[in-house]
Amino acid sequence: MSAFAVPRVFTPVLTPFNAELAVDIPQLLAFCRWLVGQGAGLALFGTNSEANSLSLAERRAVLDHVCAADIDPAHLLPGTGACALPDAIELTRHAARAGCAGVLMLPPFYYRNVSDDGLFAYYSEVIEAVGSNDLRVLLYHIPQLSGVPISFALIERLRAAYPHTVVGIKDSSGDWSNTAELLARFPGFKVFPASEALLGLALPLGAAGCISATANLQPAAIASVLAATTLETRSACVERVSTLRLAVQSLPMIPALKAVVAHYAGQAGWARVRPPLVPYRAPEAHALLTQLDALGFAMPGLAQMAAR
Amino acid sequence: MSAFAVPRVFTPVLTPFNAELAVDIPQLLAFCRWLVGQGAGLALFGTNSEANSLSLAERRAVLDHVCAADIDPAHLLPGTGACALPDAIELTRHAARAGCAGVLMLPPFYYRNVSDDGLFAYYSEVIEAVGSNDLRVLLYHIPQLSGVPISFALIERLRAAYPHTVVGIKDSSGDWSNTAELLARFPGFKVFPASEALLGLALPLGAAGCISATANLQPAAIASVLAATTLETRSACVERVSTLRLAVQSLPMIPALKAVVAHYAGQAGWARVRPPLVPYRAPEAHALLTQLDALGFAMPGLAQMAAR
Repeated sequence: MSAFAVPRVFTPVLTPFNAELAVDIPQLLAFCRWLVGQGAGLALFGTNSEANSLSLAERRAVLDHVCAADIDPAHLLPGTGACALPDAIELTRHAARAGCAGVLMLPPFYYRNVSDDGLFAYYSEVIEAVGSNDLRVLLYHIPQLSGVPISFALIERLRAAYPHTVVGIKDSSGDWSNTAELLARFPGFKVFPASEALLGLALPLGAAGCISATANLQPAAIASVLAATTLETRSACVERVSTLRLAVQSLPMIPALKAVVAHYAGQAGWARVRPPLVPYRAPEAHALLTQLDALGFAMPGLAQMAAR
Repeated sequence: MSAFAVPRVFTPVLTPFNAELAVDIPQLLAFCRWLVGQGAGLALFGTNSEANSLSLAERRAVLDHVCAADIDPAHLLPGTGACALPDAIELTRHAARAGCAGVLMLPPFYYRNVSDDGLFAYYSEVIEAVGSNDLRVLLYHIPQLSGVPISFALIERLRAAYPHTVVGIKDSSGDWSNTAELLARFPGFKVFPASEALLGLALPLGAAGCISATANLQPAAIASVLAATTLETRSACVERVSTLRLAVQSLPMIPALKAVVAHYAGQAGWARVRPPLVPYRAPEAHALLTQLDALGFAMPGLAQMAAR
């Protein structure tokens, strides 16, 4: 579990597409290298990666490319949850074999009002089928999209059955009381809030870091929150990262983030999204970029890496 | 469009699993043959088929098996919508090449609050990529599960762009006012309510039949509603099918339907479901079967076909 031994920031890596709407592997690798250089781990295949808009074959191929690109798999926390059990098993097995630090698993998200028995069976089938002592699973609680919350009772059952495997959770509910309760109920469980703005509250309670959409934009600044050695430094760092987070979080997140990366990478194609999402419009992008500019925002070195 | 020339019942075919939770192809084919023999078309890969719990490879293989089993593809209306555009394109192309009557397309169902622009782009990408004059697409409106309603404005845009391709909709909203409005607004559009209990209201307004979960149990009775030549006969037939529908529709539909098929097919394995669903418990199954027995319910000939 060395990958989660100290608080870390993981980025749900945005996925660039080329003009044919296929994954732009060179741009993706350049961005991954930039993120790792900024101190972030890579939560490939997150909500903000448009992961569910990628086929299983595409997700496998992306993981292979990233692993072949001299990026230490200890930095990788790919999303491997899927509606179809065989897909979740295949991708989780692939990630475990690649030596990833762990996987972040959405529950199956088509049927609603599913029981904890059914969800336990789902996670259990994946864990048993993969059958690896090295597998580390983080659960993914994002009920506003998945429609399927991860209950405290389910966490208790999974931890009891698989104490060395089910090691944490990403709480994307946006409900601080839920995050606080997770931290209080499950000492030692790796709890990742989904916003760096919550780190000031969450770190003193034992949070394991954060997995945040806006870690695509400010990974180093978030890493500095986690590295702060005094309360005063940490508070100042949290205030800084919260300003950007709050400027962005009420926008259509994925198109807005991609518009920002497109600008700072100097690669207009980065703004593409796959349907059913639509790209950010030019006036909206301009307004956001102006706002970020006024905040002194930058993505240092990205343009050079993207241009290679 | 001969496949939709007269009102038809399509069954969202339940998917049997073997002890390894793989699709039980022989049992599935036996059930498909029984359904066709009872006068139903096969809406493979519907919500009640646990389609989103099947991998893309499994769905392709099932379709291949059904087509190889001497079942006329004019009876087939497979579900081909998927969160990932490449999956939807591949399965839709496969169905079109197989000569299926049409496809029933869920919108991508992970992201919420997606725009009609994004949904139009999604359906448009699939239709253009498949590029077949023979393709017939029915939209699938089931907002309580997909989280993504099909708006009237989207239907108008798709019909205007693809008048020969986008030919109908399944309305699973359970909101009769929506179905009535679809029938009123879009003459000639093939509107399928998701319950046979609505046929008494829907047929006089021009409904194209129905695609109903409970068509797994009473396909011939529903076909008799559609074949009725007088209002009186039709009313009597609707009353009969409505009794069973109402007995079942508030239950956990898929496990309940599978328990019933397991009983009448004499194949206990039919009761299996894939996680995150859980099978129906024995006491609940017993209570339901007792109730159906009291209604004189039967699935004539199924046990013989399942035993072959």
